[in-house]
Amino acid sequence: MDKQKGIDSLFNPRSIAVIGASETRGKLGNDVMRNLIESGYEGRIYPINPKAGEILSHKVFRSVRDIPGDVDVAVIVIPAKFVLKAVEECGVKGVKALVIITAGFKEIGHEGQEAEKMLASLAEDYEMVIQGPNCLGIINTSAPYNASFSSGTPKKGSIAFASQSGALMTGILDWSLMEKIGFSKFVSLGNKAHLNESDFIEAFGRDSDSTFILLYIESVVDGRKFMDACRKVIPHKPIFVVKSGVSAAGARAASSHTGSLAGSDTAYDVAFKQCGVRRASDMAALFDVASVFDDMHLPSGNRVAIITNAGGPGILTTDACEASGLQIAQLTSQTVEFLKENLPPAAAVYNPIDALGTAQPEDYALCIEAALSDENVDSVLVLLTPQAMTKQAETAQVVVDAHTKYPGKPLIAVFMGGNSMVYPRIILTEGHIPVFDFPERAVHALAELYKYTVSRDSLKDESIPKFKADTKKVEKIISDVRADKRRVLLGSEAHAIAEAYGIPVARIRLATSSEEAKSLAEELGYPVVLKIASPDIVHKSDIGGIKVGLKTPEEVEVAFLQILDNARSQLPKAIIYGVDVQEMAEKGKELIIGCSRDVQFGPLIMFGAGGIFVNYLKDIAFRLAPMNRSDANELIMDTKIGTLLRGVRGESPSDVVAIEDAVLRISQLVTDFPDIVELDINPAFAYEKGKGVSAVDVKITIGGP
Amino acid sequence: MDKQKGIDSLFNPRSIAVIGASETRGKLGNDVMRNLIESGYEGRIYPINPKAGEILSHKVFRSVRDIPGDVDVAVIVIPAKFVLKAVEECGVKGVKALVIITAGFKEIGHEGQEAEKMLASLAEDYEMVIQGPNCLGIINTSAPYNASFSSGTPKKGSIAFASQSGALMTGILDWSLMEKIGFSKFVSLGNKAHLNESDFIEAFGRDSDSTFILLYIESVVDGRKFMDACRKVIPHKPIFVVKSGVSAAGARAASSHTGSLAGSDTAYDVAFKQCGVRRASDMAALFDVASVFDDMHLPSGNRVAIITNAGGPGILTTDACEASGLQIAQLTSQTVEFLKENLPPAAAVYNPIDALGTAQPEDYALCIEAALSDENVDSVLVLLTPQAMTKQAETAQVVVDAHTKYPGKPLIAVFMGGNSMVYPRIILTEGHIPVFDFPERAVHALAELYKYTVSRDSLKDESIPKFKADTKKVEKIISDVRADKRRVLLGSEAHAIAEAYGIPVARIRLATSSEEAKSLAEELGYPVVLKIASPDIVHKSDIGGIKVGLKTPEEVEVAFLQILDNARSQLPKAIIYGVDVQEMAEKGKELIIGCSRDVQFGPLIMFGAGGIFVNYLKDIAFRLAPMNRSDANELIMDTKIGTLLRGVRGESPSDVVAIEDAVLRISQLVTDFPDIVELDINPAFAYEKGKGVSAVDVKITIGGP
Repeated sequence: MDKQKGIDSLFNPRSIAVIGASETRGKLGNDVMRNLIESGYEGRIYPINPKAGEILSHKVFRSVRDIPGDVDVAVIVIPAKFVLKAVEECGVKGVKALVIITAGFKEIGHEGQEAEKMLASLAEDYEMVIQGPNCLGIINTSAPYNASFSSGTPKKGSIAFASQSGALMTGILDWSLMEKIGFSKFVSLGNKAHLNESDFIEAFGRDSDSTFILLYIESVVDGRKFMDACRKVIPHKPIFVVKSGVSAAGARAASSHTGSLAGSDTAYDVAFKQCGVRRASDMAALFDVASVFDDMHLPSGNRVAIITNAGGPGILTTDACEASGLQIAQLTSQTVEFLKENLPPAAAVYNPIDALGTAQPEDYALCIEAALSDENVDSVLVLLTPQAMTKQAETAQVVVDAHTKYPGKPLIAVFMGGNSMVYPRIILTEGHIPVFDFPERAVHALAELYKYTVSRDSLKDESIPKFKADTKKVEKIISDVRADKRRVLLGSEAHAIAEAYGIPVARIRLATSSEEAKSLAEELGYPVVLKIASPDIVHKSDIGGIKVGLKTPEEVEVAFLQILDNARSQLPKAIIYGVDVQEMAEKGKELIIGCSRDVQFGPLIMFGAGGIFVNYLKDIAFRLAPMNRSDANELIMDTKIGTLLRGVRGESPSDVVAIEDAVLRISQLVTDFPDIVELDINPAFAYEKGKGVSAVDVKITIGGP
Repeated sequence: MDKQKGIDSLFNPRSIAVIGASETRGKLGNDVMRNLIESGYEGRIYPINPKAGEILSHKVFRSVRDIPGDVDVAVIVIPAKFVLKAVEECGVKGVKALVIITAGFKEIGHEGQEAEKMLASLAEDYEMVIQGPNCLGIINTSAPYNASFSSGTPKKGSIAFASQSGALMTGILDWSLMEKIGFSKFVSLGNKAHLNESDFIEAFGRDSDSTFILLYIESVVDGRKFMDACRKVIPHKPIFVVKSGVSAAGARAASSHTGSLAGSDTAYDVAFKQCGVRRASDMAALFDVASVFDDMHLPSGNRVAIITNAGGPGILTTDACEASGLQIAQLTSQTVEFLKENLPPAAAVYNPIDALGTAQPEDYALCIEAALSDENVDSVLVLLTPQAMTKQAETAQVVVDAHTKYPGKPLIAVFMGGNSMVYPRIILTEGHIPVFDFPERAVHALAELYKYTVSRDSLKDESIPKFKADTKKVEKIISDVRADKRRVLLGSEAHAIAEAYGIPVARIRLATSSEEAKSLAEELGYPVVLKIASPDIVHKSDIGGIKVGLKTPEEVEVAFLQILDNARSQLPKAIIYGVDVQEMAEKGKELIIGCSRDVQFGPLIMFGAGGIFVNYLKDIAFRLAPMNRSDANELIMDTKIGTLLRGVRGESPSDVVAIEDAVLRISQLVTDFPDIVELDINPAFAYEKGKGVSAVDVKITIGGP
């Protein structure tokens, strides 16, 4: 079914039924009715209630089926036990979209969860969309209509907001009314039984009344769909998100480096980054950005002009700009000359422009206009402190006028103070100038808008490379391991899988006797490495399970016996398959390349500095698979070792292309085989440019059948 | 002179003269007079003005000398050119403290700077203290008196605030009146010609009306004095500072690793840390902390209870707590049982306590009281969202009542919303409960208070070790280098200095011919290292100026010639003294230990992972010298390599005590010899426990004569 068509009906209904409408004040069914009427909804309203009559002057029907005409949207506010029946009736009636406000579903346990599955399946059967259950409702300020039990309707504006927490939404609505922040759409996601964040992101993307998307989410239903929806929208509209629950998942048990180093929230961070979504650090920051964007165009660059009547705040603002990745604009010589001619001699005419404590509104006017018309300036911050000769209100008006004259560049006010700034702030807000009380939040909001433009512009439509691979061989190895009732692959098996995907590996063979070890060593060529082969021993070097640089049959024999002895004495319960004999790779720069699997987003690839100190150095970065070559390159260059690989201080550069290839091949492998839940190559050795890489130790764990 | 005695007079004057008092509204001399009178000052007020008569009903004197009685404080608001004469008259009169509001000194250039020197010297001559010039004045709410040209007097409270920016201060005063934040002292530092931040910190520390110290500074006058003052105060009172000008100093030219890796602001960060001062990220954060501290005791630990009427905000708060180093308290079983008995079954009775959207004031009351009386809880955050059944004002009252009953634990409100929360917020503020609109800022403020208690408790009174050293030898080397008109020491000289301070070094000798190199190699024992000896070549390995592992006289001869050849072909203008022959140290873990010199704070010691990739790894930490052994140990453990040195994953631990010794000896060396402006030991090799360290390459630069 086409959910987007359903959402179109939800956004612009010609008629709305309220199932559970009530005449009694304080009941949700009454709140919804009153909000609908008071929001100025111009379509037909059908209250549904077993008791016939009238509710708020609207004729009551006993059931949706009794309504004479079509019904586009039904809002459901009856007790949970009656909801399924009502939904079915809506389906029969041909209602296009349902808003289920009623609580008592997934959040109360198993039974509720089953009911939600029924809701989703009814939605599909009858080709309806369902928002909720357990939600506050929906508000569209452009239709206009308010089908929620919120107290109040937000101001009309250009921000589309969707929230997984209804209560947070009520707080934000209340707060936005005071702060005069406008919204185009206000959607409470509830339990997301049918419609979820991805559906609304796509719909907001298509909605011409919305130019800016804000989200509060605790999780996403489908990581891939979320990323696809965001990627589609980001080129046209910014998406800012507060994602909570960072600490909720807690530490996961993980046997691989990659698994233990990827925090429970890493995949979200990476997903947001890979699809250009900006993550806000907190709710206040989210709305700081919104308040600026609601009134201003995006900045076309990061060069900021600062105008102030005091030095201290100018320095604070400069610090904040540099810390946020904004540049202090270098004003053109014309601007500087103009300011010199028109400001007192003691004024600072470079940036920050300090018009001095005596600055009058007309001084501010000329500084602001000079900055706004300077080609080296992308946005302007106006600071004001309440000094003896300061005219706050008149200065506010001057800021508003300048913006009217030069609407193209962001212009943000920081009026520092309290009581004396209340009225000036009203002038600014009414004049569509975002205003803050301290510089840092203003700078941060501006920087976020700029960073969105950078993320947007860096999203490339590059294809995912497809390498030739022996998938049959990998299938066979995995099915053999399953038959052996194991999860952890032996070294020889893991290396064979890597080889099947064209990843250069040190060859490896399993020996079950010292005689066999010696003959394998001859076959591979000296020197060789011996490693314990046991699914129960993950960190082999810690227990003396690895011997390197063995040059003769005698050394191989001694090492074989020592390794078995070390393993048996330290981990007597470990199942031991024998000892792997491996060719000894020439030493290169030590890397780790790995993969863990995120519940929502799938394979999460890690790259970084390898060796036994991975957990201490933590020089690592992550990307979600599948990846294109640019992703792989950025992943490598996000680490400090990436800089070393590029070649610095006379060191010859490493074979970065070969490392990218290895990353991309692993990305393909784990995308092809969801069975692989964890993979670690540690170390992989990187050699000089043109000389490739070598995977020295490959570990693979597969998931349950 | 005893500046503190002077400040005592400044804080509690029995009489105040206003030099430049005026009857004309809008003049600063009138503002000061009116503020003095309106603030309720009970001492004698003497307006000084050449025109006799009365100003605001106070008899005018022509000069301070004409005043019959003693004058404790004189406020000076006359034009700059008359100030020095007035100051001298005050001196003759025996005035104890001056507040020079007049601007036009250091900030206008050389002449003003000279005038300030005169001011300072007059202050010393006459045993007066001088605040300013170029300042807003001073306000003491407990005396009470307001000797400033501020508009308004702050509310009485327990915060002592000193600011280097007068304009910022006016903004904050205005803002504090709206936000109902109280101050004990409000001091504008101005140009700090005589009294500076350190003097006021010490005075605030002794002031029984002040329990909390806030600073806004752009720089400190004397780093050592500042640290001493803070260390004295921190055990009793928190100091929070916003230090701006992070980006102002820009990049410094530096030839050493230590110099280039220490940012212009690093010394401030380190100084604050070493004396327990908390640095606030921005002005808003500074006052968030102040607003909490103004009303609440310090938390005795980091365990927080969260009470909410909605899940989403609870999760946001949990995330914020964990990100800020606060713990979600584990409630006692009694508390959990009590909540189970008294809340609806669907409520969450573990922490966060979710009393559900239907929560009434009495539900909040019992949750808050249960949390406040739980021994596992150190502080309580109360979240409220405006839902259908929420009673905001009554809930606010319940929070206030609970705090009255249990005043010992911090209790902070987060009332999310706008218009519906205005009145409830007034109830909370009037009831001395700090209140925020979003959780994150509340959590951050609480975390800062907790972190202050941790910093305070970790300040130890440990003595600085004093090693035996051959200072004569160091003096001799430095004076020889000076005689040679050099700044950069040769390797042999630098190693000799390190050796004189007992730092284990690889021995080094300068050879000027290949024959000499061979005979020195014999003397030191093979294998040896040869390095170019040139004051002009800093990064020797980059130009092929180092050859290692030379085992025979022949190899030494070849290497000698190659090194000279490489140096001459790549840096033909470099002055070359010959080639250093050095004993080859056994390879260990590579460290860097260095020192650069900060203008305000003196020697800044760096420790970290060494080798040629120092600038890329940036695994480094800093401390100011002199240091005690705990400082040295913390410096080492602040780095990732510190963890490796401690011994992890089967690696045997390194000789951390020997590394501490080396750090402490360097700390002593650079403290003894301010001539040493830069020092780099890179690498120093660290060996296994008991086997010490070895400084392989020591570089020293001395300052101008």
